[in-house]
Amino acid sequence: MRNVAVRNIERTDSSVVDALGELGVATVHEAQGRTGLMQTCMRPVYPGARVAGNAVTALAHPGDNWMLHVVVELAQPGDIVVVALSSPNTDGMFGDLLATSYRARGIRGLVIDAGCRDIRELTQMRFPVWSRAISAKGTVKATAGSVNVPVVCAGMLVNPGDVVVADDDGVVIVSRTDAERTLEAAQAREANEVDKRARLAAGEPGLDMYNMREPLVEAGLVYVDTPDDLRD
Amino acid sequence: MRNVAVRNIERTDSSVVDALGELGVATVHEAQGRTGLMQTCMRPVYPGARVAGNAVTALAHPGDNWMLHVVVELAQPGDIVVVALSSPNTDGMFGDLLATSYRARGIRGLVIDAGCRDIRELTQMRFPVWSRAISAKGTVKATAGSVNVPVVCAGMLVNPGDVVVADDDGVVIVSRTDAERTLEAAQAREANEVDKRARLAAGEPGLDMYNMREPLVEAGLVYVDTPDDLRD
Amino acid sequence: MRNVAVRNIERTDSSVVDALGELGVATVHEAQGRTGLMQTCMRPVYPGARVAGNAVTALAHPGDNWMLHVVVELAQPGDIVVVALSSPNTDGMFGDLLATSYRARGIRGLVIDAGCRDIRELTQMRFPVWSRAISAKGTVKATAGSVNVPVVCAGMLVNPGDVVVADDDGVVIVSRTDAERTLEAAQAREANEVDKRARLAAGEPGLDMYNMREPLVEAGLVYVDTPDDLRD
Amino acid sequence: MRNVAVRNIERTDSSVVDALGELGVATVHEAQGRTGLMQTCMRPVYPGARVAGNAVTALAHPGDNWMLHVVVELAQPGDIVVVALSSPNTDGMFGDLLATSYRARGIRGLVIDAGCRDIRELTQMRFPVWSRAISAKGTVKATAGSVNVPVVCAGMLVNPGDVVVADDDGVVIVSRTDAERTLEAAQAREANEVDKRARLAAGEPGLDMYNMREPLVEAGLVYVDTPDDLRD
Amino acid sequence: MRNVAVRNIERTDSSVVDALGELGVATVHEAQGRTGLMQTCMRPVYPGARVAGNAVTALAHPGDNWMLHVVVELAQPGDIVVVALSSPNTDGMFGDLLATSYRARGIRGLVIDAGCRDIRELTQMRFPVWSRAISAKGTVKATAGSVNVPVVCAGMLVNPGDVVVADDDGVVIVSRTDAERTLEAAQAREANEVDKRARLAAGEPGLDMYNMREPLVEAGLVYVDTPDDLRD
Amino acid sequence: MRNVAVRNIERTDSSVVDALGELGVATVHEAQGRTGLMQTCMRPVYPGARVAGNAVTALAHPGDNWMLHVVVELAQPGDIVVVALSSPNTDGMFGDLLATSYRARGIRGLVIDAGCRDIRELTQMRFPVWSRAISAKGTVKATAGSVNVPVVCAGMLVNPGDVVVADDDGVVIVSRTDAERTLEAAQAREANEVDKRARLAAGEPGLDMYNMREPLVEAGLVYVDTPDDLRD
Repeated sequence: MRNVAVRNIERTDSSVVDALGELGVATVHEAQGRTGLMQTCMRPVYPGARVAGNAVTALAHPGDNWMLHVVVELAQPGDIVVVALSSPNTDGMFGDLLATSYRARGIRGLVIDAGCRDIRELTQMRFPVWSRAISAKGTVKATAGSVNVPVVCAGMLVNPGDVVVADDDGVVIVSRTDAERTLEAAQAREANEVDKRARLAAGEPGLDMYNMREPLVEAGLVYVDTPDDLRD
Repeated sequence: MRNVAVRNIERTDSSVVDALGELGVATVHEAQGRTGLMQTCMRPVYPGARVAGNAVTALAHPGDNWMLHVVVELAQPGDIVVVALSSPNTDGMFGDLLATSYRARGIRGLVIDAGCRDIRELTQMRFPVWSRAISAKGTVKATAGSVNVPVVCAGMLVNPGDVVVADDDGVVIVSRTDAERTLEAAQAREANEVDKRARLAAGEPGLDMYNMREPLVEAGLVYVDTPDDLRD
Repeated sequence: MRNVAVRNIERTDSSVVDALGELGVATVHEAQGRTGLMQTCMRPVYPGARVAGNAVTALAHPGDNWMLHVVVELAQPGDIVVVALSSPNTDGMFGDLLATSYRARGIRGLVIDAGCRDIRELTQMRFPVWSRAISAKGTVKATAGSVNVPVVCAGMLVNPGDVVVADDDGVVIVSRTDAERTLEAAQAREANEVDKRARLAAGEPGLDMYNMREPLVEAGLVYVDTPDDLRD
Repeated sequence: MRNVAVRNIERTDSSVVDALGELGVATVHEAQGRTGLMQTCMRPVYPGARVAGNAVTALAHPGDNWMLHVVVELAQPGDIVVVALSSPNTDGMFGDLLATSYRARGIRGLVIDAGCRDIRELTQMRFPVWSRAISAKGTVKATAGSVNVPVVCAGMLVNPGDVVVADDDGVVIVSRTDAERTLEAAQAREANEVDKRARLAAGEPGLDMYNMREPLVEAGLVYVDTPDDLRD
Repeated sequence: MRNVAVRNIERTDSSVVDALGELGVATVHEAQGRTGLMQTCMRPVYPGARVAGNAVTALAHPGDNWMLHVVVELAQPGDIVVVALSSPNTDGMFGDLLATSYRARGIRGLVIDAGCRDIRELTQMRFPVWSRAISAKGTVKATAGSVNVPVVCAGMLVNPGDVVVADDDGVVIVSRTDAERTLEAAQAREANEVDKRARLAAGEPGLDMYNMREPLVEAGLVYVDTPDDLRD
Repeated sequence: MRNVAVRNIERTDSSVVDALGELGVATVHEAQGRTGLMQTCMRPVYPGARVAGNAVTALAHPGDNWMLHVVVELAQPGDIVVVALSSPNTDGMFGDLLATSYRARGIRGLVIDAGCRDIRELTQMRFPVWSRAISAKGTVKATAGSVNVPVVCAGMLVNPGDVVVADDDGVVIVSRTDAERTLEAAQAREANEVDKRARLAAGEPGLDMYNMREPLVEAGLVYVDTPDDLRD
């Protein structure tokens, strides 16, 4: 495998990215057919974090955060750095110094399939990070990886220029070529939910609103009056 | 296995339920002989959540939240929905739409041996959920399960009408037939702790207060003056 | 194995301890050559906790918190109790009563390779605990362990009188004999970072500031212009 | 909770038990509607183990195997001992001495939601054990539990006298009252599979044999000729 | 996401596939620059399994093995089926009936990021399977997935027609376009190891054979005579 | 932290080592007061492995097996190499080439808190390894660690020259200074078990042989005749 850093990548239009970010992870994930979600071990380092951006990617080695430095100058304002590892590792590859550098570059956040540290400082800076672990374990800068190549991060394929949406519910990836279509579907879904929410808040049974009663019978659900009816 | 929904269950008296809720998980768990605690993977989706109620139960299948809709109209104000899975799963079976419906029905909270999503909205609504995972992964409505049958949730047997007490320490189940006895024991324990807390705060050694010095000697504990005394 | 409680241990000078606490876990860990960090499963029971102190140690058995009572009167103001287990266990060995007793004694916090409970009360008291789990599961007082002997806690060797530094990034142990040297190294590192942070905030590329461009070439990193250049 | 040992329990007829054992875990699990399976962490301590019997149950405490001694004289030839724990634990509660005692009593095997040791000796004796872990960690005999009460073992409710079937695929529990019905369903299923196996071995496509082609179209599956057809 | 089954895929030449299989997972993984290895949770269901083939892929849903039937008739002799899941699941999606069908088709093995059952029968048939879990949990056939699309299986991207090499060391994927180059590198590596193995067996120190002594000094390794030299 | 390799260490007498090895892990662990056992994740790479030796230790970094080469020439016939990691890692640090070198040196086995590969070859060679994982992931030789310093391996402190005993039950460490005393205790225990085994095989109830009946009553165990007696 060659160790390559790709300078120029195609990005998704920022208006699409930002609109997806407004809709949030759960809605976007549903809108693209329940795909794109990273593993649930990817958690924000402080509650309430919420961001969307274009993915710039890095493939790093365990205990080595060199590529997190290389990616900085290949990123543009509005990007989110996505870091995959060549084998499982929880070392703290990112802290407040790198966050300072990322912020100066306009990078909006970090998604890393490893560890993160300086949680107090990142929380004060409100620099959002989603990681597999929190770890103070420091790293070296010894082995080259790659930047802006396709990577698998927390079980999900990420291509440079894909859209990353992340919030308290996790991280979802929207492929660049699907982004507009997904946005439309997500907006339709969101519009649809406003009415549903109002009806449910008014006490309408979901079984009626979703027309579930007949399918439930077909699926074999039987209502009985009391636990005694369960015998025999 | 038939797929059954039981309409009417016996519940625990609400004054007993609420009094158990006031005492909290740790005290109630101790009062019933250190039993009833669900696995520690069951965590609240926001800190500070605290609730008690009668259990209405659902047995659901991986990736399928149909029974979470069925359970709504069999619940009464003051109930807590307890969801068990037929095999391990972390999909996000519950979100803000269902929470809106549950709240409209007077349901006090949810305990689910799977995933939950829309964390931001649930936190804003203060609708308390204890779950095994946070996941945006959406679910289908395709396979019937059961409602208000005995289930094993996070390692604990739950019968409909049992009392659920949940807070930052986890989730404890009190069987309906033991609820009053457990409440009495818990209240006695709580009363006893007020005095203990005051004595400990005043600096009284626990070894004296609990009369532990003699049993420690009997158990073989030997005091030495310095680490040098450890050598043979 | 004898069950021993050692009354008198050598401690690290409190000015050194407090200065290490100011610097925080990540800096101290780096300063002593990236050693001393406990496993990342050790998390604070509430965010923002931050403390340093001299280690007094306890070796306890699963489901038995007796030694957590014995350690109290062998501790001095400024100490932190470090509890190791003889086999893996997540029971809730520590709660608000013990915290009241510890605080009355001037103990600054607890690091325990097991579970903790009464999270709401500990948060209100601001008594900081780092634990492997949150669990309401109560414990007995039946089997003797040891106090102030060397223990392995969450993968790290801790000798009585070592310095414990703990914050949102985890827990690091500084051996008593290395404490001053580590403090000096940590202070030098911290001073050095102030300048670096300013330069990074001003937008200076880390690749330049750290003189990484040449080593990256030597390590085999190749820059290409576009993804098309990756073919062949 | 009282600590109780129940002397006499109702058992399932041995001809039913043995017939279920012949059919194996996967078939029996399917025959009772895909229920009854313990968590997949329950593994045999040597490959090829295969057994069925009536459950006699024990509820034990972490690090304490006292109840594994109590259960012996309440067991009958043909029984299988099922051990649940009051909180998670992997200590080695069972070894070759207890296996010698169990075998002398006619006990056919052990299912334990904790650890097991003396693996070499158990393998030589061919005394089958399914456990959550292999651990040499020894245990005490200090705290009473219960024998022949309902327990939750590895996520599954087990009542005394239920049928335990265990093999390389795991452990399944058949409730005593369902045992005959389940046996009939399992035998029907097995008979049905002989024909299916022959047809599949002869190369008949499962899609035809199971009449899946139409339902697949209805479920939305689209066939395309080449990967190029995926674009657009 | 559309649910698509692709009929025709490009495969890797069988002589290359078989030669890679001879070399084994560790050698092939090294030869392509230490990439391509699936997560270590992927284990053979019996020891000694060893196979290589062209990947045909399936994307399935939790608890649903429908696509494992669809993939059969799109496979050719010499293929290996690779199954990815849309969210984490350990259900037993594959057993001896499907294995009979796969074998009749000439399929060489299965790699599945979920569970497998009928271990005794698969072992007797010598049909090799690498899976995340062993589980008797049965599955439904209700929701369409896809066949012969790119998937992420156990953390690794797999394209249809890639080479799968699997043995006791795990599973490695070689991309179709790299297969010949990787084979050459692997054969060179293997040839090189014969000589090394002989020299090491004859007692030559690795430090000399690999010329490591000087680099070790440069890396800061210091030799001392006795533990006493560690002090100060 | 300096990177140090210590040339000369004190070892335990080989007759003591070999005698401990004969007794096996479970007996030795009990004989030294149920201490010294590594975490249960440490498993032999093939069943039936059984060995004892003097520990020579290495502290390595994730993904870097350099120190496993350095340790070879500091080992003597009869030694076992114990490898600890500076942070969690499962890479395959050891394979058949290193095993060839170790065997040529008379090293009896390896205990490594990381991964191992070439399982087929190690099994054929009968070179015993206990590891946390099986992984083909290759490693670099880039960063210095230490050799023959005290390490924490799989939760247990190991000093160079301590005795390592390993078999199917796991790995136990006996400190050099305790080795003779532990051997005597283990031999006494073993002798004692011969008689016990015979009595249990003859059907004598353990409750009588161990005089447990009275203590059980004192501990609160109550016998009842039937499940009906459990109702209040």
